[in-house]
Amino acid sequence: MRAAVLRGPGDVAIDERPVPRPGPAEVVVRVRSVGVCGSDTHYYEHGRIGRFVVESPLVLGHEAAGEVTDLGPGVTRLTVGQRVSIEPGVPDLTCEQCLAGRYNLCPGMRFFATPPFDGALAEYVVVHEAFAHPVPENVSDDAAALLEPLSVGIWACRKARITAGDRVLVTGAGPIGLVCVQAALAFGATEVVVSDINPARLALAKELGATEAVDVRETRVSDLPRPPQVLLECSGHAPAIAEAIRALDRAGRAVLVGMGSDEVALPLPVVQERELELAGVFRYANTWPTAIALVASGRIDLDRLVTGTYRLDQTEEALTAARRDPQSVKAVVRPQT
Amino acid sequence: MRAAVLRGPGDVAIDERPVPRPGPAEVVVRVRSVGVCGSDTHYYEHGRIGRFVVESPLVLGHEAAGEVTDLGPGVTRLTVGQRVSIEPGVPDLTCEQCLAGRYNLCPGMRFFATPPFDGALAEYVVVHEAFAHPVPENVSDDAAALLEPLSVGIWACRKARITAGDRVLVTGAGPIGLVCVQAALAFGATEVVVSDINPARLALAKELGATEAVDVRETRVSDLPRPPQVLLECSGHAPAIAEAIRALDRAGRAVLVGMGSDEVALPLPVVQERELELAGVFRYANTWPTAIALVASGRIDLDRLVTGTYRLDQTEEALTAARRDPQSVKAVVRPQT
Amino acid sequence: MRAAVLRGPGDVAIDERPVPRPGPAEVVVRVRSVGVCGSDTHYYEHGRIGRFVVESPLVLGHEAAGEVTDLGPGVTRLTVGQRVSIEPGVPDLTCEQCLAGRYNLCPGMRFFATPPFDGALAEYVVVHEAFAHPVPENVSDDAAALLEPLSVGIWACRKARITAGDRVLVTGAGPIGLVCVQAALAFGATEVVVSDINPARLALAKELGATEAVDVRETRVSDLPRPPQVLLECSGHAPAIAEAIRALDRAGRAVLVGMGSDEVALPLPVVQERELELAGVFRYANTWPTAIALVASGRIDLDRLVTGTYRLDQTEEALTAARRDPQSVKAVVRPQT
Amino acid sequence: MRAAVLRGPGDVAIDERPVPRPGPAEVVVRVRSVGVCGSDTHYYEHGRIGRFVVESPLVLGHEAAGEVTDLGPGVTRLTVGQRVSIEPGVPDLTCEQCLAGRYNLCPGMRFFATPPFDGALAEYVVVHEAFAHPVPENVSDDAAALLEPLSVGIWACRKARITAGDRVLVTGAGPIGLVCVQAALAFGATEVVVSDINPARLALAKELGATEAVDVRETRVSDLPRPPQVLLECSGHAPAIAEAIRALDRAGRAVLVGMGSDEVALPLPVVQERELELAGVFRYANTWPTAIALVASGRIDLDRLVTGTYRLDQTEEALTAARRDPQSVKAVVRPQT
Repeated sequence: MRAAVLRGPGDVAIDERPVPRPGPAEVVVRVRSVGVCGSDTHYYEHGRIGRFVVESPLVLGHEAAGEVTDLGPGVTRLTVGQRVSIEPGVPDLTCEQCLAGRYNLCPGMRFFATPPFDGALAEYVVVHEAFAHPVPENVSDDAAALLEPLSVGIWACRKARITAGDRVLVTGAGPIGLVCVQAALAFGATEVVVSDINPARLALAKELGATEAVDVRETRVSDLPRPPQVLLECSGHAPAIAEAIRALDRAGRAVLVGMGSDEVALPLPVVQERELELAGVFRYANTWPTAIALVASGRIDLDRLVTGTYRLDQTEEALTAARRDPQSVKAVVRPQT
Repeated sequence: MRAAVLRGPGDVAIDERPVPRPGPAEVVVRVRSVGVCGSDTHYYEHGRIGRFVVESPLVLGHEAAGEVTDLGPGVTRLTVGQRVSIEPGVPDLTCEQCLAGRYNLCPGMRFFATPPFDGALAEYVVVHEAFAHPVPENVSDDAAALLEPLSVGIWACRKARITAGDRVLVTGAGPIGLVCVQAALAFGATEVVVSDINPARLALAKELGATEAVDVRETRVSDLPRPPQVLLECSGHAPAIAEAIRALDRAGRAVLVGMGSDEVALPLPVVQERELELAGVFRYANTWPTAIALVASGRIDLDRLVTGTYRLDQTEEALTAARRDPQSVKAVVRPQT
Repeated sequence: MRAAVLRGPGDVAIDERPVPRPGPAEVVVRVRSVGVCGSDTHYYEHGRIGRFVVESPLVLGHEAAGEVTDLGPGVTRLTVGQRVSIEPGVPDLTCEQCLAGRYNLCPGMRFFATPPFDGALAEYVVVHEAFAHPVPENVSDDAAALLEPLSVGIWACRKARITAGDRVLVTGAGPIGLVCVQAALAFGATEVVVSDINPARLALAKELGATEAVDVRETRVSDLPRPPQVLLECSGHAPAIAEAIRALDRAGRAVLVGMGSDEVALPLPVVQERELELAGVFRYANTWPTAIALVASGRIDLDRLVTGTYRLDQTEEALTAARRDPQSVKAVVRPQT
Repeated sequence: MRAAVLRGPGDVAIDERPVPRPGPAEVVVRVRSVGVCGSDTHYYEHGRIGRFVVESPLVLGHEAAGEVTDLGPGVTRLTVGQRVSIEPGVPDLTCEQCLAGRYNLCPGMRFFATPPFDGALAEYVVVHEAFAHPVPENVSDDAAALLEPLSVGIWACRKARITAGDRVLVTGAGPIGLVCVQAALAFGATEVVVSDINPARLALAKELGATEAVDVRETRVSDLPRPPQVLLECSGHAPAIAEAIRALDRAGRAVLVGMGSDEVALPLPVVQERELELAGVFRYANTWPTAIALVASGRIDLDRLVTGTYRLDQTEEALTAARRDPQSVKAVVRPQT
C-alpha cells in the first residue's frame, strides 16, 4: 500500500509499505478521508513538536475515517464493510488514569502520527476495535474524519461545563475555534462570541452559528456588553489569553485549548477576585459517541469546514494549504485517490 | 382592581380588591398573561393540595407576566413600563438553603397561589424586584408567563445533568412533559423519546422536536432499542415510574418531576446494579435567565403550547379546559381583558 | 493446592486443584487472608443470589490478600514477594462503561466467587497485575483482605459526596455498616449516627467513632435532633429505608448499599419536596488507593472488625459464624493454615 | 465605646464611638476576640490594598467573635447572651451571585474593615443575625474568632474538592497555610506536604498534622516522591506558584489562595498536558457551619495558632507582631481588655 511519510522537515514522500495485519481485538481500516491538523503541518515544517521529535520516517495524519476490511482475532463489535471513524489514541487501559476514565492522560498512550507511532495518511491502518467507531450513513467520510477535531471541541465544552443559556467566548477561529463554536451551541450556549483577526474565518464562524464575531484588531473582547461566563481559548496567543480572561464574568470558567508559549502571564488578582476556574485540556476522552450523535442529528456541520480535498500524492499541498491561503480552513486527503 | 378568587372547591368569583402597594424593593406589575397550571386546577377542584388547604379566599395563578407600573422604595433594577416575567416565589433569602443557592427549598418561601399567599389571576400584583425578570421584545406576554413551567423543565434538565448527545426519556406529555422535551433538546439531548397515552399530546411533542413518541398502551418504554441515559418523569403515575426506571441505561439518572401517590414501589435491585441516580425536584432556582435566553434565542417555543386564551371572568373555563378537552395543553388567562 | 469449593447449598468441600498459571499481565498470589462476606454465606445457604446460580462447583471468597509468587508475561508493576490486596473484579477494560471510568458497571466483568468465576478461598489465585494492589508493611494481611469491604464504604461515601462537617446516618451496623461509619468519618463527617437492633454491633460502631448509636427498637431515626444530610443505607430492610429517607434534611443524599427486596416503597413526595437524591451503588471503582491510604495512615482500623479466624478446612464454620453468633462481625479464613 | 481606628498609614488611635444600634434583623455583639489578619497589617502599613483605599478613619479587624447583647427588630434566631462567631461580610442577598449561592462574589458586599466599612476592633459591632453564628461552649472565644481564617481554608479545600486519601501540597505556612493544612486533613487528605522558608512555621505545621514539611531553600516541591493531586497555594509568591504547579500530578487541582503580584507567569503546556485545573478563591461562602463542626468535634485546633494576645490599646503592637517576630503566627486582640 501507499503511505505519505515524513522523512524530515519539509520532506514528505509516498512510500510503499505492507498492508498492516490486525492483532487481537484489532481491525484493519481502508482509509477514506484524513483531515490535516495544525500539528501535522508543524511536524512537516519543524520536524518536531516540543519533546516529540521525528527521528525516523513517520506517517502523518490522525483525523481519519474509512471502512473495515479485516478483523483480528477476538473482534466482536465490528464487521467487514462497516464505515468507522478512528479515535487515534489507544491507551494502556489499566493505568490509574485509564481506570479512572481519564485515558487521555495515560502515560502509555500510543497516538497516531506522534513519534514513534505512525498515523493515517496511508491506504490502510490498524486500530483497536474499541477505538474504531461505526458511523451512520448520513455522516460523510470527511465528517467522520473530522469527528476528531470535533472531539477537541466537545471535550473543551465538557471541561467548561457549558450548558443551556451560557454566554461563551471563543478566542481564535481556526479549525479548532470553529468546532468549539459549533460544540458550544450544541451544548446549549445561547451567546457565542468568536474573536480572530481573519475576516474569512470570522465570517464562517457566523455562518456556523456564532452570535457575534469580533475582529480583535478593532474591538477588545473585554468590552463586550455582557461578560461571557465561559472562555474557550483557541488562539494560544499569550496576550489574547490574558485579555480574554479579563473579559470573563464572576465565577467564569476558562478552558485553555490553544497551544503556545511555554509560559503565559496571567492576571492572578482577576482570577481570584472573580473566582475564575482555568482548565487545561489535552486531547479528549469518551467523546466519539457524542460527536457522532451531534453530527448525525444535524446539529453540527463538519463538511462545511472542508475547504480543499487532495489525493494522497498531494499530501504536501494539503499540509501547506492553510499557510498559503487565508481562506483555507480544513484540508482533507483522500488516501484511496 | 378585579381578581379571580377561589372561595372553595369549584367556586371562583371575580372580586374587587384594592390595587396592591409596593413595599421596599418591590414593584407593581400590571398582569398581562397568566398560564393555568395543573395545581390551580387541583385547588379549584379539591380546595387543597396535600397539606396546603384553601382556608380563606385565594387568588390562583402563578405563571404570570406583565408590565411594571409602580416602584417601591429602593428599587434600582426596574423602571416603569418594563415588561417582566414573574418568578412567583420569594424566599427569606437568609436561611441556610437560600445562602447555599437552593432558595427553592427555603422553609420561609412565600409562593404565589399557595395558601395563604395570593396568586396572579388579578389585574395587578406586587413582587420583589429581584423576582421580576425583564424580557426582551421578541418574547410574547404569553411566553413570558410560561417561563414559569419552562423553569420546571430547565431545573429538571439541570438536576439530570443533561448534556450534548444524551438520550432522554420523558414520561408524560402534558404541559410539563412538553417543556421538558424542549428543555432537554436545548440542553443538547439528541434523542428525546416521549411517552403518553394521549395522541394529540404525543403529536405535539414530535412537532416540538421529540425524536420519538411512544404510546404506552402499545409499546413499553423498557423495549426501546437503545436505553435512555436520562429519565424526566412527568407522569407521576406509580407503575409508569417503575417501568421507566427499568428502561434506563447503566449509570442513568432519573429526575422525578410528576407528583402522584404518597408511596411508589421502586425496583431497588435495578437501581443498585445499574447505579442509577434518582432525584426529586421541587420548583426551581436561578432558572429565569436561562429560560429567557432559550426563548429569546428561538430555541424554545412556548407560544405553541397555548391552546386557549381567556378573559379574567372566564377563569373557571380556563381552569377546566384541560379536563374538558384532550386537545387542550395550556390555557392562558389575560387579566386585562 | 487446596481450595474450599461450594458444591451445592450447605455443601463445602476442600478439593485439590492445580496451582493456577498466570496469563499475560497476570500474577499468582499465595492467599494469606480471606474475609467472609454475606454474599458468600448466601451462596452457601441458598446456592444462588438472584440470577447468579451456582451450577458447578464454585470456590467462594472475594475479600483477599496475599503475596505475589509468580509473574505472567509482561508484568511490570509487581515483583515476586510483594504483599498485595486483591481487587476481585476484572472488567473487559474497553467497553463504554470501562472507558468512562465506571468499570464496576462493565457487562463483561469477571468477579471472584460469582458464578462461573472462582473465588479466593484457596491457597493460590491468579489476578491481573492492575488489580493486585501492593500494601505497605503496617497493613496486616487481614486488613489487606478487608480493603474490599472498605471499598464498598468508600464508594458509598463518594457517591454520597460526603465532605467535612457532614451529618451522616448509617442504617445497619453489620460489617458494611461499620466500614461505612469509618469511611464517613475519614471523609470528614462530624456527626455519624448509626442504627441497628444488635447492641453488640452498635457498641462496636461507637468504639469505631460513631457519634451516636440508635437502637431502632427504641428510637426512630426520623426523631433525630438535627436531620442528617446523608444516608448510607446498609440494612436492605424496606421499612428501614423508607423511614431513613424521611429522616433526611432538605437537599439530602441517600446511597442505597444494602440489598433486599425486589421492590421498595419510597415516600416520593418527601423525595421531591426536599429535593433528595438517591443513588444505587454496585461494588466500587478506583477505591483501592484510597482504602490503602486510609488504613496505612491509621485513619481506619480494619483489624478491629475481625471477630474470628479460621483454617481453610474450617471454611463452613467461618461461613456460618455470623448466623450463629450475634457478637460475630467479620470471620476471616487463613488459607495457608 | 472604644474602637481602634486607622487614620492613615502607620497611625492607629483608640477613639470613643457610640455603641451601634441594631437595624432590622441585626444584632449587637460585644466583641471578645479579634484575630489580626495580614490584610489588617497591610492596611496599617500602606493605607490601601489594591483599589481599596482608606480615605477616612477605618476600624480594622474582620476575624471576630463575641456575645450578643442586643437584638434589632425581627431577630428570631439569636438571643441575648449567646456566644457567636461573626461572618464579616454581608452581601445584598438578591443579586445573581447571591441567589446562586455564591454570595462571596456579590458586587454589593459590605465587608468588615474594607473601606468604607468599619471592622471589629471595637467593643461592640452590629451584624445581620444570619451572619452571627452561635458557637458551642467548647469553642473558645479566640477559636470562634479564628473561624474566619479557617473558613478560607475550608473554602480552598472545597474548591479543590479534597477528599479522603488525597495527596495535598500547601505552599506557605503562614496562618492561612496552617489552616489549610488542618482543613485538608479534616477533608480526608492522607498526605499533606507543607512548604515554607520559616522553620518555626514548618515545625508548627508538622505539629498540626502535616505529614511532611519542606524547606524550599533546600528542597524543590517538584522533587516530591509522589506528585500531589492538590495544591493549596498560600504563598502568593510568583516563582513558588509556577514551581508548585509543575509539582502536580496529572488531573491535579490547584487553588490559588495567596495574593501577590498582578501577573504571574504560569507553565501553560504543563497545565494542558496534565489537564490541571486552577481556581482562584475569594473569601468563602457557607463555611461557618462546617468550621464550627470541625472545631467543636476536635478535628481542628485553632487555639494552637494564637501566639500572642493583646488589649485593644495594644492594637498597633498586634498589627506588627508578625513582622517583628518570626515565631508569631496569629495575634489576637481582646477588645474588652
